[in-house]
Amino acid sequence: MMKPKMIGGGLLDRRVFLMKGMTFSVATLASGSLLASSDTPRLPWMEKPGEPLSNYGQPSPHERKTIRWIMANSMAKGNGVSWTPLQDLEGTITPNGLHYERHHNGVPQIDPKKHQLLIHGDVTHPLLFNMDALLRYPMTSCLCFIECGGNSNAGWNTIPIQTAVGYMHGMASCSEWTGIPLKILLDEAKVSDRAKWIIAEGADASLMNVSIPLDKAMDDCILAVYQNGERIRPENGYPLRLLVPGWEGVVNVKWLRRLHLSNRPTMARNETSKYTELLPSGKAQQFSFVMQAKSIITHPSFGHKLDEKGLYQISGLAWSGRGKINKVEVSADGGHTWVEAELQEPVLSKCFTRFRIPWQWNGTTAILKSRAIDETGYIQPERSELIAEKGKYGYFHYNAIVTWNISDQGEITHAYS
Amino acid sequence: MMKPKMIGGGLLDRRVFLMKGMTFSVATLASGSLLASSDTPRLPWMEKPGEPLSNYGQPSPHERKTIRWIMANSMAKGNGVSWTPLQDLEGTITPNGLHYERHHNGVPQIDPKKHQLLIHGDVTHPLLFNMDALLRYPMTSCLCFIECGGNSNAGWNTIPIQTAVGYMHGMASCSEWTGIPLKILLDEAKVSDRAKWIIAEGADASLMNVSIPLDKAMDDCILAVYQNGERIRPENGYPLRLLVPGWEGVVNVKWLRRLHLSNRPTMARNETSKYTELLPSGKAQQFSFVMQAKSIITHPSFGHKLDEKGLYQISGLAWSGRGKINKVEVSADGGHTWVEAELQEPVLSKCFTRFRIPWQWNGTTAILKSRAIDETGYIQPERSELIAEKGKYGYFHYNAIVTWNISDQGEITHAYS
Repeated sequence: MMKPKMIGGGLLDRRVFLMKGMTFSVATLASGSLLASSDTPRLPWMEKPGEPLSNYGQPSPHERKTIRWIMANSMAKGNGVSWTPLQDLEGTITPNGLHYERHHNGVPQIDPKKHQLLIHGDVTHPLLFNMDALLRYPMTSCLCFIECGGNSNAGWNTIPIQTAVGYMHGMASCSEWTGIPLKILLDEAKVSDRAKWIIAEGADASLMNVSIPLDKAMDDCILAVYQNGERIRPENGYPLRLLVPGWEGVVNVKWLRRLHLSNRPTMARNETSKYTELLPSGKAQQFSFVMQAKSIITHPSFGHKLDEKGLYQISGLAWSGRGKINKVEVSADGGHTWVEAELQEPVLSKCFTRFRIPWQWNGTTAILKSRAIDETGYIQPERSELIAEKGKYGYFHYNAIVTWNISDQGEITHAYS
Repeated sequence: MMKPKMIGGGLLDRRVFLMKGMTFSVATLASGSLLASSDTPRLPWMEKPGEPLSNYGQPSPHERKTIRWIMANSMAKGNGVSWTPLQDLEGTITPNGLHYERHHNGVPQIDPKKHQLLIHGDVTHPLLFNMDALLRYPMTSCLCFIECGGNSNAGWNTIPIQTAVGYMHGMASCSEWTGIPLKILLDEAKVSDRAKWIIAEGADASLMNVSIPLDKAMDDCILAVYQNGERIRPENGYPLRLLVPGWEGVVNVKWLRRLHLSNRPTMARNETSKYTELLPSGKAQQFSFVMQAKSIITHPSFGHKLDEKGLYQISGLAWSGRGKINKVEVSADGGHTWVEAELQEPVLSKCFTRFRIPWQWNGTTAILKSRAIDETGYIQPERSELIAEKGKYGYFHYNAIVTWNISDQGEITHAYS
C-alpha cells in the first residue's frame, strides 16, 4: 500500500482514493470455510418469492429512523417546523418526503381545480390564472436549495447544543424545481414603471404575505409546479409555490394565490417583527434576504461514533445564496491547518454542493471544521467573527463554521471554538 | 406583441420565451367586479387551520393518478414490471416512489444487519463486507438514468400501440445515486490478471446473475447505497445495488450479494436466451449492454389534448448510454424540417436531459417528432432505419424516433412514419 502524504491532523489529499493500491481494510478477509463452499449461506429472503410490485414506493421498514423530526405548537399542531435529517442523507438531493417544513397555520388541503393565481396592483393587465392555464405556460427547471432564515439559530445560544446535524441545520433542503419563470407572467401583465415591489400571498389560513423587490422577481424566480419530477407535495406548497432561489425560505411562498405589484413593501409581520436582525447598535436589519455561504460536516457528526482508528471519509454539504460554491476547506486540528475538499460535480448555483475528503483518524482527540467559500469570495465566518458583526442576540441568518470535537473514544460532540 | 419568426410547422426559436413582450394570453383578464374588490373570494382552506406537520410526506390526494402502472404475472405477483408515468412528470429527476421496477421474483425484504457482499473468484484477497463496513468506504454521487433493455419494445409491433408515454417508454428513470466506486473494492481484493469478467448476483429468490466486462467495472460502476439522498428503497435494491451507468437495467443488479471475478462470462439465462437480440441474419447479438440515444416528447403526448389553437411548449426527455446528449431536434411537420430544442442545464453524461421548444399550433393536423444526437455523433434512428438494421423481430433495445399525430381536434395518437 502506498503511504499518501498526510496534511494536517490526518487529512489526506482529496484525490487519494484514486491512487492505485490504497486500501481501507475494513472488510473481513473471507475465511477458509467460506472459500471451500465458495459462497455465503442463503438467507430467508433468498428462499421465497418477494413482495409484489407497487404503485408508489416507500422506504424500507429498516429506515424508519430517517424521518423529519417535528417541533410544533402542541395547541396548534400546524404551527411549527419539521427538520430534514441531514445526518442520515448523502448526495445533494433531498427526497420529497423529507424536505423540511415551516408552517404558520398547517398544511392547507387545496383542490387544484379551485386554486387561482391573481396578478394585480401596479399592472396594465391584471391577470387571473387557474392551474390548467398555468400548465400551458413554458417551464424551466433548476436544482436549488431552500433554507429557512431561522435555520441553525441554536448557534446563537451561549452553550453549543448537542443534537444531530438535521435538528440544528435541517431547515435546509435541496430539490429540482420545475415551473414557469415569473418574468413571463409579469411581462404579460405589463408591470407599470412605478412598481418596485411584488407582494406574494399564500392560500393557507395564516394570511402569510411577504415583499420581494421587483428586480429579483424579474431575475430568476419561478412559479414552481413540480418538485423532483412530480407535482409539489401539499406541505411544500401544492399546487403552486413561489421559488426565490438563494433567498430565505419565508419568501418562497407556498400555496401561492396572489402577487400584488406595488411601489413599496407591505411591511407585514414577517418582515418587521420577524425575519429581521437585531444588530449590536440596537437597530434591526430588515430585508436580509440572501442566505450567506454555509457548510456542515454531516459524516461524521453528532450521533455517529468512530469505532476504531483508521481511514474515514469526511462528507458534508455546502451552499450559498449568492451563487456557486467555489471551495470548501476542512480542518482536523481545530483550524490550524486547512485542506481543500473534493466537490461533487456538477457544482451548481444556489444548490447544495456535496464535499468529501479522506481522513486518517489516529485514535486521539481531533477537532473537525469545514468552511465554505463562494464564487463571490465570501468566506463562511468563525462564530466569533459572526458575533462581532451581528452581536450576541441574533435569531436569523446564523451561518458560522460548525465544529465537531472527536474524543479518543471516537465520540462526537458539538463545540464552539 | 412581437411576432417571432416561425420555422417549420409552427415551431419557434427555442429562445423565444426570453423575448420581451411575448404573450401566451391563456390567462383570464381580471374582471371589473374582481378589480373592485381587489381580491378573489376566500376558499375553505383559507378559513381554517391546515393539517399538522408530518414525519414523511406523501403526494397530494389529488395526484393519485400519478402512479407506477403495474404489469405482473397474476400467478406470481412479484414477476413483472411497473412503469414510471413519464407523461405526468417534468424536469429530469424521477422521485423514488415512481422509479420503474422490473423484478423476476418480487422484492426481497432484506434485513440490512444480515446482508453481506462477497467479492471472490480470481482475486488475491477474497473479501466479505457487511453494510457497516461498506458505509466506512468513500462514496461518490452521480445523476444517471437506468433503462430496461426491453423498454419501448412495443415499438417492434407492426401497429403503433395507443398508450401513454410512460406505459411504453417508462422502464426508464433517473436519480442521483450515491455509493462506493467499485474500483476501490476491487483494488482492495487485488484482482488477478486472468480475470476479465465480473459476475454479479442479487439476494432475491430469482437467482439473477449477470456478467459484466471487468473494464466497465473498473471504470464508472458504483455500489449504490443512496438514491436521491435517502437509502435506496426495497424495490430498487435495498440495501445495495450495482450501478452500471448507461448500460441496460438488467446488469444494474439489485440486492447485490456477490461479485465473482472470472476469465469468462457466466452465460446465464439473462445473457443467452434473454437480453440478446435476434438479427435479420438469424444470429443473435449477445452483450449489447449500452443503451443507445433516445428521445420522447412527453408534453403533449398520447392522453393529453390541445384544447385550443395557440402557443404551447413542447417538452420531452432525451438520454444516451454513451455519454452526454449533444442536441435534440424537434419536427412539427413529420420530419420535413427540424428545429433545435433548448436543453435544460446542466447536461450530464448518461443522465436524463429535458428538452423544450415553443410551438404555435394553428389548429390543423400536425406530426410531432423528436430526435436525439449524443456527444459521440450517434443519431436516434427513424423506425424504418432501426428495422433495416435490426430486423422486424426485435425485442430489446428499441430506440426509434417517436411520432405523435395531432388531429385538427387537438387529439394525439401514436403513429409510425
